[in-house]
Amino acid sequence: MVGIIMGSSSDLSVMQDAIEICKEFGVAYEVDIVSAHRTPVKMLQYAQTAKEKGFKVIIAGAGGAAHLPGMVASATILPVIGVPVKSSNSIDGWDSVLSILQMPNGVPVATVALNASKNAGILAVQMLAISDEGLSQKLLAYKQDLIEKVAEMSQKTKSNLS
Amino acid sequence: MVGIIMGSSSDLSVMQDAIEICKEFGVAYEVDIVSAHRTPVKMLQYAQTAKEKGFKVIIAGAGGAAHLPGMVASATILPVIGVPVKSSNSIDGWDSVLSILQMPNGVPVATVALNASKNAGILAVQMLAISDEGLSQKLLAYKQDLIEKVAEMSQKTKSNLS
Amino acid sequence: MVGIIMGSSSDLSVMQDAIEICKEFGVAYEVDIVSAHRTPVKMLQYAQTAKEKGFKVIIAGAGGAAHLPGMVASATILPVIGVPVKSSNSIDGWDSVLSILQMPNGVPVATVALNASKNAGILAVQMLAISDEGLSQKLLAYKQDLIEKVAEMSQKTKSNLS
Amino acid sequence: MVGIIMGSSSDLSVMQDAIEICKEFGVAYEVDIVSAHRTPVKMLQYAQTAKEKGFKVIIAGAGGAAHLPGMVASATILPVIGVPVKSSNSIDGWDSVLSILQMPNGVPVATVALNASKNAGILAVQMLAISDEGLSQKLLAYKQDLIEKVAEMSQKTKSNLS
Amino acid sequence: MVGIIMGSSSDLSVMQDAIEICKEFGVAYEVDIVSAHRTPVKMLQYAQTAKEKGFKVIIAGAGGAAHLPGMVASATILPVIGVPVKSSNSIDGWDSVLSILQMPNGVPVATVALNASKNAGILAVQMLAISDEGLSQKLLAYKQDLIEKVAEMSQKTKSNLS
Amino acid sequence: MVGIIMGSSSDLSVMQDAIEICKEFGVAYEVDIVSAHRTPVKMLQYAQTAKEKGFKVIIAGAGGAAHLPGMVASATILPVIGVPVKSSNSIDGWDSVLSILQMPNGVPVATVALNASKNAGILAVQMLAISDEGLSQKLLAYKQDLIEKVAEMSQKTKSNLS
Amino acid sequence: MVGIIMGSSSDLSVMQDAIEICKEFGVAYEVDIVSAHRTPVKMLQYAQTAKEKGFKVIIAGAGGAAHLPGMVASATILPVIGVPVKSSNSIDGWDSVLSILQMPNGVPVATVALNASKNAGILAVQMLAISDEGLSQKLLAYKQDLIEKVAEMSQKTKSNLS
Amino acid sequence: MVGIIMGSSSDLSVMQDAIEICKEFGVAYEVDIVSAHRTPVKMLQYAQTAKEKGFKVIIAGAGGAAHLPGMVASATILPVIGVPVKSSNSIDGWDSVLSILQMPNGVPVATVALNASKNAGILAVQMLAISDEGLSQKLLAYKQDLIEKVAEMSQKTKSNLS
Repeated sequence: MVGIIMGSSSDLSVMQDAIEICKEFGVAYEVDIVSAHRTPVKMLQYAQTAKEKGFKVIIAGAGGAAHLPGMVASATILPVIGVPVKSSNSIDGWDSVLSILQMPNGVPVATVALNASKNAGILAVQMLAISDEGLSQKLLAYKQDLIEKVAEMSQKTKSNLS
Repeated sequence: MVGIIMGSSSDLSVMQDAIEICKEFGVAYEVDIVSAHRTPVKMLQYAQTAKEKGFKVIIAGAGGAAHLPGMVASATILPVIGVPVKSSNSIDGWDSVLSILQMPNGVPVATVALNASKNAGILAVQMLAISDEGLSQKLLAYKQDLIEKVAEMSQKTKSNLS
Repeated sequence: MVGIIMGSSSDLSVMQDAIEICKEFGVAYEVDIVSAHRTPVKMLQYAQTAKEKGFKVIIAGAGGAAHLPGMVASATILPVIGVPVKSSNSIDGWDSVLSILQMPNGVPVATVALNASKNAGILAVQMLAISDEGLSQKLLAYKQDLIEKVAEMSQKTKSNLS
Repeated sequence: MVGIIMGSSSDLSVMQDAIEICKEFGVAYEVDIVSAHRTPVKMLQYAQTAKEKGFKVIIAGAGGAAHLPGMVASATILPVIGVPVKSSNSIDGWDSVLSILQMPNGVPVATVALNASKNAGILAVQMLAISDEGLSQKLLAYKQDLIEKVAEMSQKTKSNLS
Repeated sequence: MVGIIMGSSSDLSVMQDAIEICKEFGVAYEVDIVSAHRTPVKMLQYAQTAKEKGFKVIIAGAGGAAHLPGMVASATILPVIGVPVKSSNSIDGWDSVLSILQMPNGVPVATVALNASKNAGILAVQMLAISDEGLSQKLLAYKQDLIEKVAEMSQKTKSNLS
Repeated sequence: MVGIIMGSSSDLSVMQDAIEICKEFGVAYEVDIVSAHRTPVKMLQYAQTAKEKGFKVIIAGAGGAAHLPGMVASATILPVIGVPVKSSNSIDGWDSVLSILQMPNGVPVATVALNASKNAGILAVQMLAISDEGLSQKLLAYKQDLIEKVAEMSQKTKSNLS
Repeated sequence: MVGIIMGSSSDLSVMQDAIEICKEFGVAYEVDIVSAHRTPVKMLQYAQTAKEKGFKVIIAGAGGAAHLPGMVASATILPVIGVPVKSSNSIDGWDSVLSILQMPNGVPVATVALNASKNAGILAVQMLAISDEGLSQKLLAYKQDLIEKVAEMSQKTKSNLS
Repeated sequence: MVGIIMGSSSDLSVMQDAIEICKEFGVAYEVDIVSAHRTPVKMLQYAQTAKEKGFKVIIAGAGGAAHLPGMVASATILPVIGVPVKSSNSIDGWDSVLSILQMPNGVPVATVALNASKNAGILAVQMLAISDEGLSQKLLAYKQDLIEKVAEMSQKTKSNLS
């Protein structure tokens, strides 16, 4: 099961893509609002109990001084995927990226691109697929689909231009 | 009493100036190593019990994805002063600055300049001086001293150049 | 009493949140337009007389080459909280942040996030609460309220998604 | 098995920490020099055959216009961990970070901090531990060890200062 | 013949100017959608066969972690012109610029300004003109035209202002 | 007469070049240490009385949150040239540059490059030369000298390489 | 007389403020479109003949790789004021600022804030006022006017808030 | 023939690699010191006469406000390759990169990575190879050599580690 958390429901529009990927790949998930700065106790308990509750991977999105992914990672051994959100209080996303990415030695966060919750979802599926051949097959099909979409775009662009 | 904390003893060389200011102004202080990412439980307990232990202000220094000041602020109502440390894993200090400064609404951190633990100390004294006229007098004397040092530099520079 | 100043009435929309926090916490405040660059004499007098006029903390907002907070701090021993404003002449807020934050040793400014005048207000209340148990209680209630709002968001988000 | 690759043997000093983590956790690994720009065919073959060769996770380090992690991710469904290396041709690491982190939708790279190959190693172990309880136990012990090291530092710092 | 490629048809609006320049100068061109991350095999084959297919120069546009220009350059000896595209997933264009520009020694990409596909087209024409005096004459005429347009603007501005 | 001021004698090594230019061009100058943050009253008086004391141009160097040039400009109608100093507390010079350059409408500072006090000196001479034909002649000679130095470098480089 | 030049008539909306300041202070001016990159010969001639044509100061605005101010400064001894324009091809103004500001030793450009052509105008007037007491009086009146406008804003803001 | 120019002999240590590549590929070249800011007339003449003198490509290196490549491009139809040099007066290379790269429409500069004069040399060879099959063969051999060097590094690294 994938835990998908974010600091505020205002981040949901960005984080929705991670949910869609879980649905698309048939991976169980659970969404919650967990704020590092407003609910530090809930956040710590979430992280400490995540493994026993059956979570395998946690996706955490946050913006500005984005402490949620790193703080969850501090209290669990599960892999934590961080999604830097370009929230309204962010300086063009730089604060979100740096405060998630630049974790000290010992406590990694697997950071994806700014607002890239879709990639967070795919990365979670890739992690689960290490020991799940069914998911591996779905990922191969997904990759094949990307190729075909480019082929379609290629054809359409060429005929539009000629 | 001023609590002075940092994520690692390697930050002590930067944070030493805050200690010196406390000594210079005769303000009680207590130093500890508290790591947001390696000791999240200790960190949360530190913040939750800080007020009842008699702390009035907390100075927290951290570098890279610097979560310590903001996370301590999440669990105490005491004013928290954040010192961005240009640690060895920092990208020229930008990560340290942004992950301390850019706190979301509701949970401020009083951020000072990169590596400026001396100013963190003075700011803590200024906060305590709000209700301590003796400290106010010492701050006035400190300000006067700054003026005199510039006057000396001015005189020395002029005579060196002529 | 909290002094809330800004360089231009065009900053008022950003600084309004600091005013609201003062009202919410029942803290006296006074607003004024004080420009470092257009009214340097008024600015210096404001800073020099702030303590005797009964101010305990000063909140100063400014954008671009934002000198107001640092210059006020140069002429008073009161703690000064700086709000970097992303004004129309600012380069994405970087100038505002750096020219408020990076004060030299001896003259600190307690800097909050870009446009975060709400946090400036809360920080001022936290400073006053060091010696005012009533304000401390209000801050605890405010923190409790943040927790409850996240709980509500959590519940609403979960039911919306299911 | 963890694949650890880098674009040049000059990156080895940075990537060594990932190797050490694999040794410490008893995880099999294989190191190779694979350059996206000088050996694109080898790189593509490496990625395409990685899964069938028994790799479970790939750690790729690169600096400057760092295309290795993203290009490997383009041709495998295994999770790829990217280590931005502050190589001699890098602009303070910004190019390394951005060209690894900012992958388009569909092809994620799990990015860690600048030069943080140790965290890349730990993240790889965390991914493997999803389906390996033995590794989970080792990770818990590792986390416990971090706590104890901070406790030691705390004690030593306090006695040094008093 | 000039090859004009981009990672997605969404980049076409930016890349259109390069097409227009080819038309304007009577230079043959061929447009295709080639994605480094979604179609790495097609991309590599495109680069490997470009010379034998008669391409003389390749213009490649990409945004975010923009690997297309550099990866094409890795597998061809033709000069490759890179156009950093400020795509929707880009951090103000910095990622696009740095991941195209900062190529390692041995594999250059001729990078033009952000979104400057018009200049990419002109640069391609300049390269072809090295051995094509007819194109050289057209470039001279183009330069003369720039001078005349400024003269017109100058005249119009002066009369508008007086 | 040119006023050359700086916030600290530690800036003198950078500011020395401005002094040398004044000497070289035979322009009277006066050096002083004037700190915006430590001696705001002296600074304001310096600016307010500069014109009546016979100063024609003021060169002000400062680093970090560099308020000196802008604040002097706030209280005089003389042209003020700002030299951003990459002081020890500066973040790679960005704070120095932005807090001098980004002045609001109404109060300009003529900013030169980071640490470029030599150019500040030349700019001051250029301003004075507007109404001093003798200085104009010296500037023409200086420009001619630059040309000759390049010619020498050109010759030496060519012979070294052949 | 003040020369006001820009690379394209599209910069006129930004540069208009410099024109207005000249009008307001009764200073003669002449506007022209001079492009460093499209009309380098005209540009060089403009600079070389500026002094003999009676120009005293030149204001040059440009955006992106903004070479106009520096190149004009290379061929005249008149003071050149550079206005970095945030043109449509600029990366948030950083390219405009850096390519105007960071001139090498020997050839200064007096740089003002991004888009701050009003300040360029005032700076030109300040330079002319060095030897023109009438202009000095107008500048003093202008400064007085700034003070009064802040006083008005102050009064209006206070009454609006009460 | 390739023209290799730079603004100062202090840039020669960076630009030497371009010379070496020309030698290695047997391409004629000529080196000169040409400064945009100190010798604008020589610079313009260099550009205007470059084609008739037999130059096919120009490589221009410069740092800080680096106008040389763009200004040469303004006055020739030859392709100009710009090498941003991290000179002593540069802000970490950002000014050098942006003032070369961000050329306006109509006047491209083929920009390579910071200090990457080797890549400038290779790019010049690639341009010449468009119409020179012998050079094409040398470039293919050069590419093959890169592959072999990686193979050697790979073997050596593996045996060192085992």
